Amino acid sequence: MSKFVYTFGKDITEGKGDMKDQLGGKGAGLAQMSLTGVPVPPGFTIVTDVCNVFFDNDQKVPKEVDDQIWKALAVVEKAVGKKFGDAADPLLLSVRSGAKFSMPGMMNTILNLGLNDKTTEGLVKLTNNPRFAYDCYRRFISMFGEVAFGVEMGHFDEVFDARKKKAKVKLDTDLSADDLKVIVEDFKKVFAKHAKREFPQDVKEQLILSRNAVFMSWWAPKASYYRKMEKISDRLGTACNIQAMVFGNMGDTSCTGVGFTRDPGSGAKVFYGEFLVNAQGEDVVAGIRTPSPISELKDWNEGVYNQLVDITTKLELGYKDMQDFEFTVQDGVLYMLQTRNGKRTGPAAVKVAVQLVEEGLIDEKTAVMRVAPNQLDQLLHPVFNPASLKTLVKLATGIDASPGAAVGRLAFTSEDAVIMCEKSPVILIRKETTPDDIHGMDASKGILTAVGGKSSHAAVVARGMGVPCVVGCGALAINERGKSATVKTGDKTVTIKEGDWVSLDGTTGAVYLGQAETQDPDPNSPAFAKFMKMADKFRGSFGVRANADIPRDAKAARAFGAEGIGLCRTEHMFFAEDRLPFVQKMILTDNVKDRTKALAKLLPMQKKDFAGLFESMAGFPVVIRTLDPPLHEFVPKREELMVDLAKLPAADLKTKKEMVARYKNFVPDVKSLKTVLPQLLARVEQLHEFNPMLGHRGCRLGITYPEITEMQARAIFEAVVQVAKKGKTVIPEVMIPLIGGVEELKNQKDIVVRVAEEVLAKAGLTGKQKYLVGTMIEIPRAALTADRVATEAQFFSFGTNDLTQTTMGLSRDDYTKFSKEYEDKKIFKADPFGVIDREGVGKLIKLAVDLGRSTNPKLEIGICGEHGGEPSSVEFCYNVGMDYVSCSPYRVPIARLAAAQAAIQKADSSVQAGGTK
Amino acid sequence: MSKFVYTFGKDITEGKGDMKDQLGGKGAGLAQMSLTGVPVPPGFTIVTDVCNVFFDNDQKVPKEVDDQIWKALAVVEKAVGKKFGDAADPLLLSVRSGAKFSMPGMMNTILNLGLNDKTTEGLVKLTNNPRFAYDCYRRFISMFGEVAFGVEMGHFDEVFDARKKKAKVKLDTDLSADDLKVIVEDFKKVFAKHAKREFPQDVKEQLILSRNAVFMSWWAPKASYYRKMEKISDRLGTACNIQAMVFGNMGDTSCTGVGFTRDPGSGAKVFYGEFLVNAQGEDVVAGIRTPSPISELKDWNEGVYNQLVDITTKLELGYKDMQDFEFTVQDGVLYMLQTRNGKRTGPAAVKVAVQLVEEGLIDEKTAVMRVAPNQLDQLLHPVFNPASLKTLVKLATGIDASPGAAVGRLAFTSEDAVIMCEKSPVILIRKETTPDDIHGMDASKGILTAVGGKSSHAAVVARGMGVPCVVGCGALAINERGKSATVKTGDKTVTIKEGDWVSLDGTTGAVYLGQAETQDPDPNSPAFAKFMKMADKFRGSFGVRANADIPRDAKAARAFGAEGIGLCRTEHMFFAEDRLPFVQKMILTDNVKDRTKALAKLLPMQKKDFAGLFESMAGFPVVIRTLDPPLHEFVPKREELMVDLAKLPAADLKTKKEMVARYKNFVPDVKSLKTVLPQLLARVEQLHEFNPMLGHRGCRLGITYPEITEMQARAIFEAVVQVAKKGKTVIPEVMIPLIGGVEELKNQKDIVVRVAEEVLAKAGLTGKQKYLVGTMIEIPRAALTADRVATEAQFFSFGTNDLTQTTMGLSRDDYTKFSKEYEDKKIFKADPFGVIDREGVGKLIKLAVDLGRSTNPKLEIGICGEHGGEPSSVEFCYNVGMDYVSCSPYRVPIARLAAAQAAIQKADSSVQAGGTK
Repeated sequence: MSKFVYTFGKDITEGKGDMKDQLGGKGAGLAQMSLTGVPVPPGFTIVTDVCNVFFDNDQKVPKEVDDQIWKALAVVEKAVGKKFGDAADPLLLSVRSGAKFSMPGMMNTILNLGLNDKTTEGLVKLTNNPRFAYDCYRRFISMFGEVAFGVEMGHFDEVFDARKKKAKVKLDTDLSADDLKVIVEDFKKVFAKHAKREFPQDVKEQLILSRNAVFMSWWAPKASYYRKMEKISDRLGTACNIQAMVFGNMGDTSCTGVGFTRDPGSGAKVFYGEFLVNAQGEDVVAGIRTPSPISELKDWNEGVYNQLVDITTKLELGYKDMQDFEFTVQDGVLYMLQTRNGKRTGPAAVKVAVQLVEEGLIDEKTAVMRVAPNQLDQLLHPVFNPASLKTLVKLATGIDASPGAAVGRLAFTSEDAVIMCEKSPVILIRKETTPDDIHGMDASKGILTAVGGKSSHAAVVARGMGVPCVVGCGALAINERGKSATVKTGDKTVTIKEGDWVSLDGTTGAVYLGQAETQDPDPNSPAFAKFMKMADKFRGSFGVRANADIPRDAKAARAFGAEGIGLCRTEHMFFAEDRLPFVQKMILTDNVKDRTKALAKLLPMQKKDFAGLFESMAGFPVVIRTLDPPLHEFVPKREELMVDLAKLPAADLKTKKEMVARYKNFVPDVKSLKTVLPQLLARVEQLHEFNPMLGHRGCRLGITYPEITEMQARAIFEAVVQVAKKGKTVIPEVMIPLIGGVEELKNQKDIVVRVAEEVLAKAGLTGKQKYLVGTMIEIPRAALTADRVATEAQFFSFGTNDLTQTTMGLSRDDYTKFSKEYEDKKIFKADPFGVIDREGVGKLIKLAVDLGRSTNPKLEIGICGEHGGEPSSVEFCYNVGMDYVSCSPYRVPIARLAAAQAAIQKADSSVQAGGTK
Repeated sequence: MSKFVYTFGKDITEGKGDMKDQLGGKGAGLAQMSLTGVPVPPGFTIVTDVCNVFFDNDQKVPKEVDDQIWKALAVVEKAVGKKFGDAADPLLLSVRSGAKFSMPGMMNTILNLGLNDKTTEGLVKLTNNPRFAYDCYRRFISMFGEVAFGVEMGHFDEVFDARKKKAKVKLDTDLSADDLKVIVEDFKKVFAKHAKREFPQDVKEQLILSRNAVFMSWWAPKASYYRKMEKISDRLGTACNIQAMVFGNMGDTSCTGVGFTRDPGSGAKVFYGEFLVNAQGEDVVAGIRTPSPISELKDWNEGVYNQLVDITTKLELGYKDMQDFEFTVQDGVLYMLQTRNGKRTGPAAVKVAVQLVEEGLIDEKTAVMRVAPNQLDQLLHPVFNPASLKTLVKLATGIDASPGAAVGRLAFTSEDAVIMCEKSPVILIRKETTPDDIHGMDASKGILTAVGGKSSHAAVVARGMGVPCVVGCGALAINERGKSATVKTGDKTVTIKEGDWVSLDGTTGAVYLGQAETQDPDPNSPAFAKFMKMADKFRGSFGVRANADIPRDAKAARAFGAEGIGLCRTEHMFFAEDRLPFVQKMILTDNVKDRTKALAKLLPMQKKDFAGLFESMAGFPVVIRTLDPPLHEFVPKREELMVDLAKLPAADLKTKKEMVARYKNFVPDVKSLKTVLPQLLARVEQLHEFNPMLGHRGCRLGITYPEITEMQARAIFEAVVQVAKKGKTVIPEVMIPLIGGVEELKNQKDIVVRVAEEVLAKAGLTGKQKYLVGTMIEIPRAALTADRVATEAQFFSFGTNDLTQTTMGLSRDDYTKFSKEYEDKKIFKADPFGVIDREGVGKLIKLAVDLGRSTNPKLEIGICGEHGGEPSSVEFCYNVGMDYVSCSPYRVPIARLAAAQAAIQKADSSVQAGGTK
């Protein structure tokens, strides 16, 4: 006969700590604690297999399981010295679910099981505390009703609140025993009405119904969804833990508390926690009374305190990780209710991991796996002091686009931001940003937009700069010209104006009115450095590069450990104030001659930029992408021109002067407006596109205007020569964007190679200075034909932003309009612009990697989309066989850690993923 | 020793008609004619292998080839009775290329080879016709110079024209012998200058150089490209035909002519052609003198005429197809120079194919393969009378978007078109059309747009309506409000205004100013019906459906043989004048209640439409797609609103009244403009998208607004019940657009099935009335995950317009801006919106078909994109295993024929594709 039920507790423990498969995490923990002599209220665990049997068997369990349950219950009764259902001295039980993996959203708990009209009266007599007894009973009826019969807690709350009102009391604890007795009767009526049966007085029936409810919770929609998300098998099942109740609310010799073996905020090795005398566990969390710091437990009961320190220290040694524990002292006797690895902040995770290695408790591999990569964000960006947020009005929550906390005064235009930043820190607020806003973004401490998603212009650029940013904050109605905005927050509408102080949390997306305190992180702490060094040991040859467009970003990237630049967007160099006029001239001309002339002006500027990048990244590869965005991004906005042109006939001088200022690169004076604006609009109309994302951009520009590619190639290779002549190692990689097939790559590669060879020959470096020419893979067709593309490409770099847009037929900017519905309705498992969609986009990437290597085994393969800094995506890239990932400088450490973890897991699939957040 | 050279001619023929591999098409034809007793000037063919040897061998041929050439030449000399290079009576030769397959753009021809200073003098004496001799010599020098040395013909023309000017003559034939003698000397100088050597007097050298030139032409860029396009192997090589010259210009007993065994325009069985006395072949084509109809040849020389009729009749019998032949009569003796299958118009192709079957010459399979599917277009649409076009000014050439000829007066807005069409035919001219223009397009005989490609709105809708349409006519600068346009044509700028007569050819893209004559085709001719019946026999179970949105189109589709509707775009029903206000109300409301109310108004209208479709297509499946386009298509244009709002403060009453008219569904009167316009703009702004193609549309609408899907499903199934109750067979298939994965399909399918079951249950038809729910596959991710999608889908329909856009990352509307560059630079082999891109998009389709069938073997698969009516794409769909194609009604016969041909070719890969255009 199989064993379905395992008892635990002093001297009666049948299971072991390594039996998580059968006992679940919680059950195995209780068994382990019992075995190591930790005082645990006795109980028993029904194994996970029974959960499957239950569902396979029409929601029934075989008789032999029930037999084992009653047998185990008898053992527990003996250990406690009380009897289940005994009217004089009843044994009360808790019932809890517990799967192998922790599953938030599934945990069902029923306390005080075993109470009925009779046993409650027994408890009254036994404890001489009717208030305690009725309170336990009413709690049990409502929890049991909710968990086992799906009665909404609201129905109970209504009755409860009505009684409080009647009794004219504020706190639950102010209710008298008599009040509670009435409530118990009312609760039984609520139960009967909604559960459509009487509340069961038979304690055995209570137990069986509760056990079944725990099993049913395995298939609750939120639990199913969580398993799907986390790829947890439906066949694992949940165990069911039934345990004797202990009470911290039996008087002043009782208490209940929670704690950590180290500080979960900083990682410091101090005993940390709080407790509450004469209280039940839920009261500590409820915040009705203020708990005392755990250090005061020593004064209250030194013996108990020492015992607790001793036990938890042993537990930490046993679990080899910081523990988060719960305990109850019943009448001077300590019981441990739970222990588990404690959740912690990023800095704490890093510090604890390093400490544990130093203490010899864990090896480096384990330490590296202990920190969730995204936790590093907290080490790289300022955070708010939570206390200082409490006094501020929360305005709205947008999309967390670039992490970190920022405080500043609102500026509504980039020009204003540049001016205002000299006097005080600035938060730039815009409906959306465009490349025109680069200088304003650069001048700001934080960026806030009303539209756009995680891959919008604002988000991408802000992350690159390391500036906190919240986007897609739809609650904002911005009046850009009026320099104000309104926000609906609850029923109130708040108006915010230029100069108002705002605090913005790019890590959570929250926006507050007022000035919060920020805390600066210490990314250069010894623990962090030590931790990253450990991580890098496991990463092997898999590289992490950074996306950086200017020397300043390249230097930051190096400091964060980037091993090269995976993407330099040359167009970002085109928006600088001194260059834009030439760029615009180049675009607006309709003949090759004038275009070539304008390009000649840009060449020395681009060359200087490239030389700066090569110097900052000497010895490392630098991938430079040729011009990518549609040309209309560089010229005035069509709608703005149309509106101004419509206004012009009736405009006064002031308005006209504003127009001249707005189009200063085109219109010399007020009187030219009439002739120049229509011409300008006509050309802008020609550049207008219905779907710019799918339009005349990327290599399509270089193919129609080969002189642009030629100028850029010349600037690159003249910069290569200049830096190489200084004795520095330059490793240039020229990347052609947006190809759909080998023909487009070939066309552009021919130009690049011709110019490169010409420039190198002139410098006497032919054959000596190596370089690569490769391509972005960001269009499905390029991926599908990667075998042919790879015959011309020396490297592939997956542009997963655009590849996601095209593969899913989904505009990243427009998606935000219905993303909430898609997430609520579980259409997408995660934001596909945040995490690589493995099923669709990932399949295409895998296909392209395999096809590419099939014709060109030496092909270098990386990723330069925003996903390159997202841990799950980094893992995917590692597993699919890429050579490197590239991400914004501030995510480089995250990518390094994610890659290390992917490498460790690939080498040893038994290693557990992720840290403990 | 291998045989490299084959002689042909009376009694000396070594080759045969089936030796096309070795002798090429032309050489095999000459051999065949010779063998069947047709008088052919003798000559010899150098086999195609020598072409390969030539290139493998550093552009030299082995001595044994030369030996065989001189030996064959001796045979020819004997047959003709003249000697090559004989100063007294020289044998003159023609040299021509001739590959296995006809390759336009490669054919090189050199005539009169063997002339030099001495033989020319001999010819003068022999013919006593110095003019003739010098004319031959000058022709030879220039042709030889061009073909063998790449001297541009322009250099020779310059000299020739200068001499004509000096001699004050207009026609070439007016030049005297002396003039021509001077020209010969000048030509030799031109030759020496540009060929950088003296003109070779050695006739053997002339021959060898000419032969080499023929081989070289095999690798000319245009020939290489043509082979790549047509997938002809580079190793086939070209043969070289060297043949004795005969002269039709030796006096009044000589003539030259061309003819067809049947009328190539109508297919009528009449002897057809023309001839010119005392002329060389090229003169017939040059149009300097007007040739006589071939019937008059009988009067000129009855013997020759009878002989010619006799020979060509035999040739037609031998080749089993209409022949296109060339002949020359030299001094009363008939020589056949060429025979080949004749090119013909669509009507002729159909008629000849049917006749030949009736005459027992060919079987039905062969007949079906004889007509190129696109040729049927000419039977389905009116065409211009070519003569009537000669007097008109050609304004421009745009993209041929919907075939047929149309004549009408210009209307610049849809409203004008509706008004003007009552008095005269109308051509609607727009920058681009939008769904707003449906009524104007419907009122017009032809549609002309300045932007957009073959898949633009104008193109798609026009094809659906069968209205001729030219799009992307970039030469037009349209001033829509001014109701005029300017066209640059050459140096001149022409202005066209409202009411001007224009003739537009949707088959060629040409646009003319003025009224041309049109000829109506007869699509119901007995020959056509018979032909289509033959074709359908081979198509098997492969279906052809039509894309039709309204009952009228459905009826037209049935008449063209459509076996169901493959795509009904329900949104087209939303643009009708009486519905738009409700649609707009539905869109602009921000709550479900009001939206549901507006939808309730639309329900009976949609139901009526659907019932009409079901009745027209009783017994055939009808695929109805739920709402697809982005909602902003239904509301006023954002830019227009912005401009009007900018103008409003200074607007006079007239302008304001115009605005009220423009926004009549929203603004009741002039004084409301100020309040309503900003509100309207605010909502339109919310709907605005950066990339509408990738935005909030397709199933994404149905997911965010389930009430829309619900209303449409209700309308569909209530219509089903209504028509089914009349005893008609209704086969509804509900199609969900733009899904990226199974989750989206499931979401929408659940709504459709719920409503369907509810409606059917109410009618007592549960289980009795069948229906399918399926999905478009138009997003790469849907194709990549088709195995999962097929677990929910009962059918797939490939939306290849959008699938091409997303797979190639290419907006069909914006592509026209650089399509010319892409075609010129050979980046794309064909317009991917016209012909399915097999390498990329096709690969994805194949993948999706295989994945889909892997999990759902019963899956019905079709295509409803524009490609469904394009022959090569139909072939692809057939081969990839689809069940049907769906296309616009007017392309249904084309698709039927293309499918028949694909089926025949798949069953028998030896069958030759396509007809003879």
